[in-house]
Amino acid sequence: MTKKAVVLLSGGLDSSTCVAMAQDQGFDVYGLSFSYGQRHTVELDASKRIAKAMGIVRHEVINIDLRAFGGSALTDDIDVPKGRDEGEIDGEIPVTYVPARNTIFLSFALAFAETIGADDIYIGVNALDYSGYPDCRPEYIAAYQQMARLATKVGVEGDQGVRINTPLIGMTKAEIIKTGLSLGVDYSMTTSCYDPDENGISCGKCDACLLRLKGFKEADATDPIEYQI
Amino acid sequence: MTKKAVVLLSGGLDSSTCVAMAQDQGFDVYGLSFSYGQRHTVELDASKRIAKAMGIVRHEVINIDLRAFGGSALTDDIDVPKGRDEGEIDGEIPVTYVPARNTIFLSFALAFAETIGADDIYIGVNALDYSGYPDCRPEYIAAYQQMARLATKVGVEGDQGVRINTPLIGMTKAEIIKTGLSLGVDYSMTTSCYDPDENGISCGKCDACLLRLKGFKEADATDPIEYQI
Repeated sequence: MTKKAVVLLSGGLDSSTCVAMAQDQGFDVYGLSFSYGQRHTVELDASKRIAKAMGIVRHEVINIDLRAFGGSALTDDIDVPKGRDEGEIDGEIPVTYVPARNTIFLSFALAFAETIGADDIYIGVNALDYSGYPDCRPEYIAAYQQMARLATKVGVEGDQGVRINTPLIGMTKAEIIKTGLSLGVDYSMTTSCYDPDENGISCGKCDACLLRLKGFKEADATDPIEYQI
Repeated sequence: MTKKAVVLLSGGLDSSTCVAMAQDQGFDVYGLSFSYGQRHTVELDASKRIAKAMGIVRHEVINIDLRAFGGSALTDDIDVPKGRDEGEIDGEIPVTYVPARNTIFLSFALAFAETIGADDIYIGVNALDYSGYPDCRPEYIAAYQQMARLATKVGVEGDQGVRINTPLIGMTKAEIIKTGLSLGVDYSMTTSCYDPDENGISCGKCDACLLRLKGFKEADATDPIEYQI
């Protein structure tokens, strides 16, 4: 029987790399994306392109409305910070933090995994580049897996339960890009920008763009996407 | 400053009792309900009535679509079992189990709590009457709380983080009803049935109805709701 994995798919560079890594490990990939009141649907369009191009078995998009609670620049109308240097980005909890976002996303992934009989979930969290996000830390992921094993039928009925795979957690952006390129990921389909224009073109100035550009530079590779600058 | 608590509100007997218990502990209650592709909207109507009648500060209803994954009689078109005796109900994982449901619900509660600055979440899970549900067990709740403390800003910035309160977890249905009645809960507003008719009248035969009726009988009280039988 083929192994199944649920991969959280944002349309970004990290989650696309996760898809390739899961496939490289022999998994049939089931993609899961969220429409959560983002100001930009550019991400969702990218996730659909990626799902198709990378041969994902089934791609589900779940509509949830995190705007009901508010509290982040990615869902509210707070200004996304631009042009900050690395020292400003590191360490603090960013204004772009969405309350409990990964916890919500992983919970849906858990439901999906249980329904299709998958033992593995992949999430492209990164503890280096996004050290400010509490729900990207290894200790958070370990606690989530422990909880998930107690939450589900599988865990109760004697199985080991679901594994939360975070292959990117200790990698730099440059290492992620090198890995993805070696596995044939086409990064031209991906988007990372927090604040793209109406045509989906990346701003090149927000934290996500700056980290991405720096990653390609350090990987001695060229970022194939277009920027406004 | 007033203490705030997020209470998961299903429209049923247990969650209404939780509201009263949280208020009795001095909390301003913020109610959270879900529209998740249930075949019956009777529950949601009840939750709105309860929120209004019990003076809940703010009531949010989140639309999520668990039908995207399937896998339970409460969201699919599987027949709800009827007329089973207690021996049949206890111990097994019921067909009415929804994959990762409490995990998803608690994740939204966590986002809500973080946004409004609440340190407490109440969920009316019960380990006695619903021993078949893996995500109603004390060890699951403890693992969830541990994960939640690592997931959020609050947990990172030195606070203790959120508490998951499960005041009903060790109570029998009769004890829950007695407690609620002593706190003035009007159970005529609540609904428990898995399979009500088009007018919202409870069937009186599903597991939920049987447990409820047994609870009122053992509490020497009269269930104020109407039944088809």
